[in-house]
Amino acid sequence: MPQTRADCIALDAADPLADRRALFDLPDGLIYLDGNSLGALPRTVRRRMTEVVDQQWGRDLIGSWNTHDWIGLPQRVGARIAPLIGASPTEVIAADSTSANLFKLAAAALDLRPGRRVIVSEPGNFPADLYILQGLKDLLGDRVELRIVEPSALDDALDDSVALLLLTHVHYKSGALHDMAALTARAHAVGALALWDLSHSTGALEVDLNGCGADLAVGCGYKYLNGGPGAPAFLFVAERHQAGFRSPLTGWMGHAKPFAFDDGYEPAPGLTRALCGTPPVLAMSALDAALDAFDGVALGELRAKSMALGQLFLRRVTERCAEAGFQRACPEAAAERGSQVSLRHPEGYAIMEALIARGVVGDFRAPNILRFGFAPLYVGYAEVWDAVERLAEVMASGLWREARFQRVSAVT
Amino acid sequence: MPQTRADCIALDAADPLADRRALFDLPDGLIYLDGNSLGALPRTVRRRMTEVVDQQWGRDLIGSWNTHDWIGLPQRVGARIAPLIGASPTEVIAADSTSANLFKLAAAALDLRPGRRVIVSEPGNFPADLYILQGLKDLLGDRVELRIVEPSALDDALDDSVALLLLTHVHYKSGALHDMAALTARAHAVGALALWDLSHSTGALEVDLNGCGADLAVGCGYKYLNGGPGAPAFLFVAERHQAGFRSPLTGWMGHAKPFAFDDGYEPAPGLTRALCGTPPVLAMSALDAALDAFDGVALGELRAKSMALGQLFLRRVTERCAEAGFQRACPEAAAERGSQVSLRHPEGYAIMEALIARGVVGDFRAPNILRFGFAPLYVGYAEVWDAVERLAEVMASGLWREARFQRVSAVT
Repeated sequence: MPQTRADCIALDAADPLADRRALFDLPDGLIYLDGNSLGALPRTVRRRMTEVVDQQWGRDLIGSWNTHDWIGLPQRVGARIAPLIGASPTEVIAADSTSANLFKLAAAALDLRPGRRVIVSEPGNFPADLYILQGLKDLLGDRVELRIVEPSALDDALDDSVALLLLTHVHYKSGALHDMAALTARAHAVGALALWDLSHSTGALEVDLNGCGADLAVGCGYKYLNGGPGAPAFLFVAERHQAGFRSPLTGWMGHAKPFAFDDGYEPAPGLTRALCGTPPVLAMSALDAALDAFDGVALGELRAKSMALGQLFLRRVTERCAEAGFQRACPEAAAERGSQVSLRHPEGYAIMEALIARGVVGDFRAPNILRFGFAPLYVGYAEVWDAVERLAEVMASGLWREARFQRVSAVT
Repeated sequence: MPQTRADCIALDAADPLADRRALFDLPDGLIYLDGNSLGALPRTVRRRMTEVVDQQWGRDLIGSWNTHDWIGLPQRVGARIAPLIGASPTEVIAADSTSANLFKLAAAALDLRPGRRVIVSEPGNFPADLYILQGLKDLLGDRVELRIVEPSALDDALDDSVALLLLTHVHYKSGALHDMAALTARAHAVGALALWDLSHSTGALEVDLNGCGADLAVGCGYKYLNGGPGAPAFLFVAERHQAGFRSPLTGWMGHAKPFAFDDGYEPAPGLTRALCGTPPVLAMSALDAALDAFDGVALGELRAKSMALGQLFLRRVTERCAEAGFQRACPEAAAERGSQVSLRHPEGYAIMEALIARGVVGDFRAPNILRFGFAPLYVGYAEVWDAVERLAEVMASGLWREARFQRVSAVT
């Protein structure tokens, strides 16, 4: 653990991921600790977007569906995400949004477990997950029962009426990391499927879906994968479930022969059936290019650095902001967290605004959480050191009390 | 009607839309008659993508959700599409794919017409529409009955059990244009709602949803709107239905307070509730920029030119390719067509390939349809003249018989 800023600079110099930082285009002097919300811009994306817009779309036009294999983008991008989450290349496909993919998989889970109608999740899960479940329940009525229970009550909630356990691997607010293997096993013990939302873990830590025996998963393209704002999401269906998997969103791109234009729907083989509409080529190409930054990266090194950065941040906050009124809102042990730390403070909103004005970008989650994400591909040790220095300056100076940092509406 | 190529050049010079062509980046010498499948690249999109990627994402990062109003893109883009389809700005929103939007609206229609379970559509409708209905039926079982009937059998199919009539305004293959006002009235006469798929009409001809009393609509961003491959789609819900409208895809962006992160779903006011996941900012920005090309365009002029181009094409095919074995596969009268014409030929695939090799891009739809789309913003009279000349050369020379143009697989 570094004791000085010089130690941090030495760690950065020795960092096996040090070469990755140059792959990203970040403003000089900015310390960007919000890659858990929107990943930074990979330089390859700029080149790729120019190529896709000017050449592929502008010059080659409609023919690009074949000549540049636009039509194969969802499968190709999925196959590149697969090794980051412990899946086979044919078990992952890029498509739609995380929310839409949750809908597809939650509905499909009811099919895969006929006779069962209960879906279990936890309160405080990322709201999108809960909202999608509510929409599915509203649509299907008595065919769905939702049990939203605290993790401590899971044993009571899991019984042989449960079709699906839906959990987010890393909690969006606290950063707490679920034990995927253990929870998947608990779902399986009652014959239920496990669906993991990997939005806050993919690209930040090792995920081992197949090692854990997970059944289904979704994840986000615009956080640690750096695919750009609102990037396409992805979904995973374990090989053993693919033959029985039916998406409720039976768009033409999931058809066995989309260009035969038959009236009758026939699902494509494999995970292609999870596709719905025409692939968003510009956005999907950006995500594809962004994944270049992961080429050759050892996930163990990614995770080790991520944990070290989080520990450094927390320790320095304790050392430098002891009187500032922060409470830790995330697990203390790095092994129990994803790649973010969270602090609680009643004036969290204004403090974060003042900190952003000082060039350290984290974010705020109502009602009182400051989040700091450590994207290990481009955040360094010295930056974390400096971030806490600036936070300490903000707190010591009372800068955050200035009117310009105060929240003017109830919603950020 | 022009009699010579010189007449065509004179028409191009007098074209009130002549200034639009310069807004598009098309390869020199290429005659692009496939804007009904993938619209050409508007020059503003290139500039906008550079700005969004380099500046908004790369420099301003997460703050761009507010400072560049990324969060408002779906509503802003929808409001710009609204005048093209006879809707109010708050009645249209850009989101997801056409297919996903069809799912939302078809499901919502059942809610809006409680006690009715029948959805009527026509065979040979764009398959995505039929597939989505089949998926909804598979999901909801006995709560949905599909009646897929020929237009001639509509009177028998429409009764007081019908919740929804779903039709595509312009047929993707034949280009035939439905009478939106009359068919909407027939749906209303039995108390059903009318949902129009505007994928092949928006941006090519005048659509008057509110004038026709239409209830619901979806449409495509990447055809005549030129939003780029796989661009976001849009949906329309008439003002009078919005309070009762519930999307089954209850993602967080459709929540009344998405950043309050409440566990319970509460639909946003107005059409924002139709949103699902995080807006695809790159793709949505491209579509937004593409819409600049419609600024100041009189839709009547657009339609008049589109009809004239189609008539010119058909007449010249009759004059120049009389012995080539083509059959017209679209309505003869321009007023009964959208902005495309279709020809039938048993060797359609090879002929289209050979024509593309000669610099005229149309497309082929199985089993034997050649489609030619006339995007009136950038296609001119002389180009249409030349396109038929090249088609005549292909037919006269037998060029299409060359092996390289023959289809090697059953699916194009």
